[in-house]
Amino acid sequence: MATSATSQNWKKKPWLEPRPMAQALHIAKETLFYDDSFRQFKHQSKRKKSILGLQYIFPIFDWGFHYTFKFLWRDVIAGLTIASLAVPQDLGYATLAHLPVVHGLYSSFVPPLIYSVLGSSRHIAIGPVAVVSLLLGTLLTNELPYNINGKANPQYLQLALSATFFAGVFQAGLGFLRLGFIIDFLSHATIVGFMAGAAITIGLQQLKGLLNIPTANFTTKTDIVSVLRSAFQHTYQWNWRTIVIGLVFLGFILLTRFLAHKWKKLFFLSAIAPLLSLILATVFTFHYRLENDNVAIVKDIQKGINPSSAHQLIFSGSLVGTAAKIGLVAGLIAITEGIAIGRSFAALEGYHIDGNKEFIAFGVMNLAGSVTSCYVTTGSFSRSAVNYNAGAKTPVSNIVMALTVMVVLLALTPLFKYTPNCILASIIMAAVVSLINVRAAYLIWKVDKFDFIALLGAFFGTLFISVEIGLLIAVSISFVKLLLTVTRPHTALLGNIPGTKVYRNVNQYKDAKQVPGVLAIRLDAPLYFSNSNYIRERILRYLHDEQDNVALSANGLPVQYLILDLTPVINIDVTGIIALEELETALKKKNIQLAISNPATSALEKLANSGFIERLGQQWVFLTVADAVQGCVTREVFLLM
Amino acid sequence: MATSATSQNWKKKPWLEPRPMAQALHIAKETLFYDDSFRQFKHQSKRKKSILGLQYIFPIFDWGFHYTFKFLWRDVIAGLTIASLAVPQDLGYATLAHLPVVHGLYSSFVPPLIYSVLGSSRHIAIGPVAVVSLLLGTLLTNELPYNINGKANPQYLQLALSATFFAGVFQAGLGFLRLGFIIDFLSHATIVGFMAGAAITIGLQQLKGLLNIPTANFTTKTDIVSVLRSAFQHTYQWNWRTIVIGLVFLGFILLTRFLAHKWKKLFFLSAIAPLLSLILATVFTFHYRLENDNVAIVKDIQKGINPSSAHQLIFSGSLVGTAAKIGLVAGLIAITEGIAIGRSFAALEGYHIDGNKEFIAFGVMNLAGSVTSCYVTTGSFSRSAVNYNAGAKTPVSNIVMALTVMVVLLALTPLFKYTPNCILASIIMAAVVSLINVRAAYLIWKVDKFDFIALLGAFFGTLFISVEIGLLIAVSISFVKLLLTVTRPHTALLGNIPGTKVYRNVNQYKDAKQVPGVLAIRLDAPLYFSNSNYIRERILRYLHDEQDNVALSANGLPVQYLILDLTPVINIDVTGIIALEELETALKKKNIQLAISNPATSALEKLANSGFIERLGQQWVFLTVADAVQGCVTREVFLLM
Repeated sequence: MATSATSQNWKKKPWLEPRPMAQALHIAKETLFYDDSFRQFKHQSKRKKSILGLQYIFPIFDWGFHYTFKFLWRDVIAGLTIASLAVPQDLGYATLAHLPVVHGLYSSFVPPLIYSVLGSSRHIAIGPVAVVSLLLGTLLTNELPYNINGKANPQYLQLALSATFFAGVFQAGLGFLRLGFIIDFLSHATIVGFMAGAAITIGLQQLKGLLNIPTANFTTKTDIVSVLRSAFQHTYQWNWRTIVIGLVFLGFILLTRFLAHKWKKLFFLSAIAPLLSLILATVFTFHYRLENDNVAIVKDIQKGINPSSAHQLIFSGSLVGTAAKIGLVAGLIAITEGIAIGRSFAALEGYHIDGNKEFIAFGVMNLAGSVTSCYVTTGSFSRSAVNYNAGAKTPVSNIVMALTVMVVLLALTPLFKYTPNCILASIIMAAVVSLINVRAAYLIWKVDKFDFIALLGAFFGTLFISVEIGLLIAVSISFVKLLLTVTRPHTALLGNIPGTKVYRNVNQYKDAKQVPGVLAIRLDAPLYFSNSNYIRERILRYLHDEQDNVALSANGLPVQYLILDLTPVINIDVTGIIALEELETALKKKNIQLAISNPATSALEKLANSGFIERLGQQWVFLTVADAVQGCVTREVFLLM
Repeated sequence: MATSATSQNWKKKPWLEPRPMAQALHIAKETLFYDDSFRQFKHQSKRKKSILGLQYIFPIFDWGFHYTFKFLWRDVIAGLTIASLAVPQDLGYATLAHLPVVHGLYSSFVPPLIYSVLGSSRHIAIGPVAVVSLLLGTLLTNELPYNINGKANPQYLQLALSATFFAGVFQAGLGFLRLGFIIDFLSHATIVGFMAGAAITIGLQQLKGLLNIPTANFTTKTDIVSVLRSAFQHTYQWNWRTIVIGLVFLGFILLTRFLAHKWKKLFFLSAIAPLLSLILATVFTFHYRLENDNVAIVKDIQKGINPSSAHQLIFSGSLVGTAAKIGLVAGLIAITEGIAIGRSFAALEGYHIDGNKEFIAFGVMNLAGSVTSCYVTTGSFSRSAVNYNAGAKTPVSNIVMALTVMVVLLALTPLFKYTPNCILASIIMAAVVSLINVRAAYLIWKVDKFDFIALLGAFFGTLFISVEIGLLIAVSISFVKLLLTVTRPHTALLGNIPGTKVYRNVNQYKDAKQVPGVLAIRLDAPLYFSNSNYIRERILRYLHDEQDNVALSANGLPVQYLILDLTPVINIDVTGIIALEELETALKKKNIQLAISNPATSALEKLANSGFIERLGQQWVFLTVADAVQGCVTREVFLLM
């Protein structure tokens, strides 16, 4: 019998054996290097180790060695496809961040090149994204005006680049310190809510371009009420030509997407629809000289690739703290989005994304971006999906995209002069629709109503107050939920399943029967300072309820023994031990004997070290609940041992 | 067999049965009213209910009805004893808060009376306490100078009273909202460290009085380096008479305490030693006219009981926010100390302290205090212990103490005129020694090295930086520890204990054997967004390690099945489900079949609702690990069913 075998083990008092100090190091390793990231280095020759090290730091040396012509063909197709999507989106996203449109293109050139060398995701498409652009624009305009007397404020651009620099510093720093898990503290539900709210906010912002209202006349607030009021207060500035062009192409892009959804063959049509719309609208505007009819156009875009911006970074004065704060928030949101995308494609294709390595890759990419006139970049939801569907095999598709954007910057920017702003608005509106994940929201509603309320909180906070408040609500709700889970752990009243030695939760297993005179309770969490008071009082409540039941029934046996099943209690701290001591004292006052069963090694060790086992008496510590019940019921037999 | 009985239950698919919406309400009730505080009201007549209601709000109507003459006798003795201790301590503690000494006496009159009507602890002694006085003094002097040109700053007193008001508001408010559990977030280890650091800080502050250095010349900082430097920079102001008086009586008080510790009979001598020292030192100083030899004395104390201070509270202007912030911090620390004391005596005597009710009692007490010239009060460690040892039975001892203080205020304050400051310093030094809990620190060292490091952090932070920084360190460490516990839950590799159907952690039970070709892993925590990524990657690491082991051994069977024992997974959220789906996808790529066993009802329900069970296939869900192993090993048999 197992019971006897392990009982013997038990009698050896394993907890009194000295444990190596290495234990502490082991815990530190489990916390920071839990994924054993360096496992491939074990048992290897020195030469092999240095190659593996190079591959670890630069994954390009890993997949690069297996690269084939067939891969190249797929990557070129995918790269050109996402470039066709990136160029129009970049122009629009830069305006969300209130930056000159050319910075959007810059940000699709350098960062993807850096990522393709350092990153582990093979399907992510790097560049500026809608939500981060909006967030950055909102945070920056809280500090500085982006326009002074109708001209761009040079300090605003400096602050944006400095924030990008700090975003990179924080991302790389957290990855290096292996603290990448902090993004796990944002719950899925609040992210879904926040993203949907931000998507609608971004869509509403596009009314400005779609209706042709000059930026100077439009509200700087982002909540739905202010934006709609602003849009309808300026009806006299609406321009029917703009509205018609915008709506026609918005309809065209959405239609191609709908068709592609039905017939997979039409995928490439939907992928290049935005670029096609851009070209058609530009030609149309140029041909009919619509700028003379007040249709707003992009005007001049600076020609040439990214200029250096190292001299623009702010490292002194009061704005440094501001830049660091904005960088921290924007950087964390950016990488949360980026890693989520990377992980979902990795799961689909069965490869592994190392979160901390991604932090470093994103960090270096944004550091490099900050000195080459780029603002915060990450993986884009919409373009990554297109990249994957277009058949991308490796980060080479990002290189192809970057080179395409380079060609645009070097030669084609004059062609965008007559691009009407309204077509950029339409392209962004169509793009952000994919951020509204109705299926995920429905799943959350089905699975957990509380999570759904959290989702609604983040959604409405973003929509009706501001993108920062929405984010703050999302973070706060996630935190409160975490804290509740650590203060209110589950406990279960156990009953015996007739004919067996198995004890199970009486609420889950209706045939489980409580043993008269004995109350068995399982604690479903480690016993820590945050939950000890709760657990002690919850146990006493089980006891009171049981005593009430006994008092009501005619021939009930009063509770004489209380058994705590500590199987899930894998650890305990001093507060937890004090709570158990207080419980034992309180029970003794009521003439009830406490017994415990099956604590895990580390918990048992601490109970013994603290003297609790001695105080309780070793005879009241059992291997299983069944043993404990038997021990209590046949107490006399036990006392003779 | 249980297995078959519950397997039938299982086949009924209990998770598809609709669950009432009352479920949500039930969870809210478990969170906020987990102790079922109103259980005594159930099944009672209306009249009985109203009496119980009265007793619930005013516990005095509960114990008051059973009050006997014998109780009164013990309470009077205990009350007089703690009064003899309270009067000298109050004078000293008020100077820690930089308030006129009389406010210490005021604070030992009104608040104990209020508490004795509302509070549930029968042994706590209410009044000003050392740590809260120090903390309040530090926080207040950060905002305002307490002296202007050698005269007390009236705004400083106003701010102190307003902070007391807000402390009361927050305490009562949290209790009313049943959020009292927030004080559970301070870990025991950090409290022990913080208290010890604060005790030494307070002791060092007393060098000022002991050495006779005028307050104006002494540093306002509280760290050990500044205080010692300040003490030794002013050696020219040291007064040997002061030092001798102070040290003699400090020695006397500590000696009586040591004797009382050895011979219980001498308890009362040690209890009244401070008052005795005060009287002797005062008479001595008066007789020899030592104030002419520069021995600093208390001078005039205003006669009469507490004046109203309602008009002094600040409700407008920039100081309101400051008062609220200080009140929040001081109020929370005060009630943390108070409830800890109340709970420890309640456990000793076997009665129950309702945390949220205590929050309301303390809150109302401080609200009442703030309009009667008192500053923040709570239960005192040293006086409560004396109260208990002196035989107090009910809060009547607090009433006796308050009435004694009233007599002092009405008639005896002139007698304190010649009390030398050095004797107050000695009394406080002796009192704070009890805040240094070496035994608790040793226990923490023995039980958990990490907790001990947290203790040292709070201790040295308080001692070398400041009391606020020490507190901040304590709170931060507690928080980081909590967050680590929720992101890094325990997992265990399971093995079969030969000859049984039991599967246990192979690291804890050395005789447990893994089944070839099958990897069984138990997840020891609910699967939430905060730990899902970790758990998924940890599981994959178990798999890689196992595959390495198999590759190394000659005739190992490759892993074909991965069984997750979900017994401790009592709940799961959408992120957790996504992690399981990603795991399943990743395993399928490696041709490994996933199986799960025994999830709890609510987790199972969510897995079913989300479609995960359908995706996995119901045949891969088992009741126990043993069933799952059998199911996997005899897969073909299963597929025929």
